[in-house]
Amino acid sequence: MPAIYEGAVQDLIDEFGELPGIGPKSAQRMAFHVLSADTAAVERLIEALRAVKAKVRFCETCGNIAEAPQCGICLDPRRDSRVICVVEEPKDVVAIERTREYRGLYHVLGGAIDPINGVGPDDLRMRELFARVAGVEEIILATDPDVVGEATAAYLTRMLRSMEVPVSRLASGLPVGSDLEYADEVTLGRAFEGRRRVED
Amino acid sequence: MPAIYEGAVQDLIDEFGELPGIGPKSAQRMAFHVLSADTAAVERLIEALRAVKAKVRFCETCGNIAEAPQCGICLDPRRDSRVICVVEEPKDVVAIERTREYRGLYHVLGGAIDPINGVGPDDLRMRELFARVAGVEEIILATDPDVVGEATAAYLTRMLRSMEVPVSRLASGLPVGSDLEYADEVTLGRAFEGRRRVED
Repeated sequence: MPAIYEGAVQDLIDEFGELPGIGPKSAQRMAFHVLSADTAAVERLIEALRAVKAKVRFCETCGNIAEAPQCGICLDPRRDSRVICVVEEPKDVVAIERTREYRGLYHVLGGAIDPINGVGPDDLRMRELFARVAGVEEIILATDPDVVGEATAAYLTRMLRSMEVPVSRLASGLPVGSDLEYADEVTLGRAFEGRRRVED
Repeated sequence: MPAIYEGAVQDLIDEFGELPGIGPKSAQRMAFHVLSADTAAVERLIEALRAVKAKVRFCETCGNIAEAPQCGICLDPRRDSRVICVVEEPKDVVAIERTREYRGLYHVLGGAIDPINGVGPDDLRMRELFARVAGVEEIILATDPDVVGEATAAYLTRMLRSMEVPVSRLASGLPVGSDLEYADEVTLGRAFEGRRRVED
């Protein structure tokens, strides 16, 4: 869609359009919302943007988002420091926290190994992970089950095994509540591969 | 989705979530984008938000968005001032301009008559429209073809006829490129009602 508004409105549409998942129509709707919104509401948005850039940083230990040198999870004495779950992004930490299944620590890589897009191990927080593994009883690899996530998990498995750290990977299989008929063949293949004996 | 982040990140997610069409997942994705974006890019977004609130106002004549007391269309001497097209929102002006079919002026009501949501004729720029109609050869009602848009068009037709101004309404019918089989019955009914004789 070519630029059809002029001046400030078009500038705002363009800026909104830079955000992930925002197409030209959404950007336009958002800009018109701003146009007719209270100045106070727009100031709150501006303030929130400023605050995120000013206050939020990354935890020195695990790379998760934090408003202090260390994040709330690393600082929490109730968390089990013998287990580290490795994820790609801070939002993965949130997804796992939501399950309330996991009480260990995290390590956020900041992405996955992706040679096509020029992301190698040195661009990720790999060295920081290797520095943390002494005395750890389990490293759970929770990178995404896609091509780059699997490649990253394979790389980490190799490296961590050479350091003699026990490594595990999240199970792949059928999502709970899904329909077997509609599962793709790779997922269904994984579900067979990872099948577990049912105890009596 | 409950608040799962803390502090500045959650505040930004909440603010993004206030924008139209932005659900919690999108708001989260946008906030994480801001978190990892250049400070300069975020400053550009902040500046664009500020500029829209500071510079953009509504045209004194037609109610369209403008960066001066009058909008570019009202100021353009090549536009035909004998025709006024009445629309609900500034974005409708853009949609019509994109067709390049129309060379007259506009009047933006700022919404539609919607008693359920407490919007009456006095809440819209109706009086401003009636003040403009002297000497006008045609008023084209281009409010949306939905319940409130039709009600607004009916109200305006009654008022404008009493002022002896010629009034027309945009044609309702089958969208070009659509499939007759999937047209809803109201649209198909309108298409019959508005059928035109094919000239040899």
